[in-house]
Amino acid sequence: MSLTTIQLKTPYLIFLGDVDNFVFAKTGAGIVQWRPELVKGQLRFSGNNLSLNVPDMTVQEAAKAGAKSLVLGVAPIGGQIKDHWLRVFEEALALGMDLVSGLHYRLERFPSLVAAAKTSGAQLINVRTPASSFPVGTGKKRPGKRLLMVGTDCAVGKKYTALAMTQALKEQGINATFRATGQTGIMIAGSGVPIDAVITDFVSGAAEALSPDNDPIHWDVIEGQGSILHPGYAAVSLGLLHGSQPDAFVVCHEPTRLTMEGFPDTAKPNIAQCIEYTLLNGQVTNPNIRCIGISVNTARLPEVEQLPYLSRLSQEFNLPCVDPILTGCDDLVTQLMQGSK
Amino acid sequence: MSLTTIQLKTPYLIFLGDVDNFVFAKTGAGIVQWRPELVKGQLRFSGNNLSLNVPDMTVQEAAKAGAKSLVLGVAPIGGQIKDHWLRVFEEALALGMDLVSGLHYRLERFPSLVAAAKTSGAQLINVRTPASSFPVGTGKKRPGKRLLMVGTDCAVGKKYTALAMTQALKEQGINATFRATGQTGIMIAGSGVPIDAVITDFVSGAAEALSPDNDPIHWDVIEGQGSILHPGYAAVSLGLLHGSQPDAFVVCHEPTRLTMEGFPDTAKPNIAQCIEYTLLNGQVTNPNIRCIGISVNTARLPEVEQLPYLSRLSQEFNLPCVDPILTGCDDLVTQLMQGSK
Repeated sequence: MSLTTIQLKTPYLIFLGDVDNFVFAKTGAGIVQWRPELVKGQLRFSGNNLSLNVPDMTVQEAAKAGAKSLVLGVAPIGGQIKDHWLRVFEEALALGMDLVSGLHYRLERFPSLVAAAKTSGAQLINVRTPASSFPVGTGKKRPGKRLLMVGTDCAVGKKYTALAMTQALKEQGINATFRATGQTGIMIAGSGVPIDAVITDFVSGAAEALSPDNDPIHWDVIEGQGSILHPGYAAVSLGLLHGSQPDAFVVCHEPTRLTMEGFPDTAKPNIAQCIEYTLLNGQVTNPNIRCIGISVNTARLPEVEQLPYLSRLSQEFNLPCVDPILTGCDDLVTQLMQGSK
Repeated sequence: MSLTTIQLKTPYLIFLGDVDNFVFAKTGAGIVQWRPELVKGQLRFSGNNLSLNVPDMTVQEAAKAGAKSLVLGVAPIGGQIKDHWLRVFEEALALGMDLVSGLHYRLERFPSLVAAAKTSGAQLINVRTPASSFPVGTGKKRPGKRLLMVGTDCAVGKKYTALAMTQALKEQGINATFRATGQTGIMIAGSGVPIDAVITDFVSGAAEALSPDNDPIHWDVIEGQGSILHPGYAAVSLGLLHGSQPDAFVVCHEPTRLTMEGFPDTAKPNIAQCIEYTLLNGQVTNPNIRCIGISVNTARLPEVEQLPYLSRLSQEFNLPCVDPILTGCDDLVTQLMQGSK
């Protein structure tokens, strides 16, 4: 049994192909935003005006520049790989570059890709698939500090907040590592565990492997998944919570949504419930778990209401409330450090 | 995406082979105890004095008598299949009987079994492996009533209590079905889902498929797994809890264990915690969830302390407390029916 997380070879060439809608290129944009040092360039088909504002490169140019992986920076509806993308993928594999995909369709479905990888020894990497099996979680206390993002729902800014928190900690001279649990996060981090794809018996063990023993003053900032209150995904959230044994957590929230994303009959739980459930369940592996604040995606609120909303929330919960894009995360860092000295 | 649980063909021939220690034949014994009508006979190697007190049969005799599956009734340490068992397995497969195993080693590891199954069209069934993929759980309320076993730990009598409760309900004329979530339970029920082997994203969906829409006054009695307070297995327990959306639950407990089985550093949670965590988390998919009592395995207590222990617990929690073997489950049935009219 191995403890290996997915490990991607960097730097990357980002594939956009003929995808010209920014909505479907968020993966590539996220990598460029958070890890520009990992990106050698982008590969667009001729006539595509969408750009991540990095150099345009062919596969050959990127290989010469040292790119080690061709990363699919696009996620079209349905998660399919288009046949007319294959030629470029085959070229990259032939040059020894790994091909990295976060799509639902597995790369192994395409015999020409399997053959090209086999010939050159390059790898086909599906970041939705765990790289290895994991042992059962032990709950044994590990050295190092851990901060977990939790949420009132899916898609409420957990990955964004974790990345922004990691950056804010580093800017204040605090040693911190972003730990990725989903496909885009794994591409940004260059490693991680797609936690929702692990077999349930081993999910807390996988979370333990994701944030292993570390320096006592080092912070792992762990990307959350789902919600402890979600009827479909709570087991993922609980396994991640138990295995992460976080010292602290941030509740991520989207204020305009009334029901859970994709679950029109399920009322979205509120922030207080999310704190209550996370504290109670989190105490199973860390009796000292505490909530250090709330991160809100206020983008859908009218502009004049955004800051007042954060201010009201902060008073209600007596905790710092931020929108990472609007206010930054410094207030969360201050709160985190105050209780951790 | 299918909603299919594992489905075993009955009746069974139970394989004991040369396993002569009852401890390793509990699976076979459990099937004979709870579902004698499913068992045509047992297959022992010559010289083995261990018996389940059912007719001895060769594979040929069992096939003639109508047996449809050869079921491995033994679980030796390490979960391995012995080479000298294979000849009998091949014979059964050649006669069209399915081969059913709950061991860790998959039957497909043996080319001779794969070949024999292919020739006759019989199936190799590993009851530790889910039969199909499942959709994400919806949390949508289903008709029918559900009773879930939960526990303060693994191996505290959840399967036994579920089977005893199903029997007690039926004896009182109440329509009830045992729903299996582990390998032995699946062999006893003839169907089920090995819930801990499902991918975490789909575990509550699998639990929903296990106890589908039913008659409004029918009770599904669902075998529990792990513990909501277990550092390794809580995600399994939570997915099962959310997907089962139980109206009622029974806490199963072993009173002499101080730490969790196999986790010598983890204190075993107490009954009150187990009730608190189950009520809170269970309310996510069933706001009316209630605890109807406690089932204790008192076998390791001194005999004179067994009934007084149950009596003290009952006073402490103001709930019926039973040991299914010592007292039966009628008090639990009474409590269940009182609140469910």
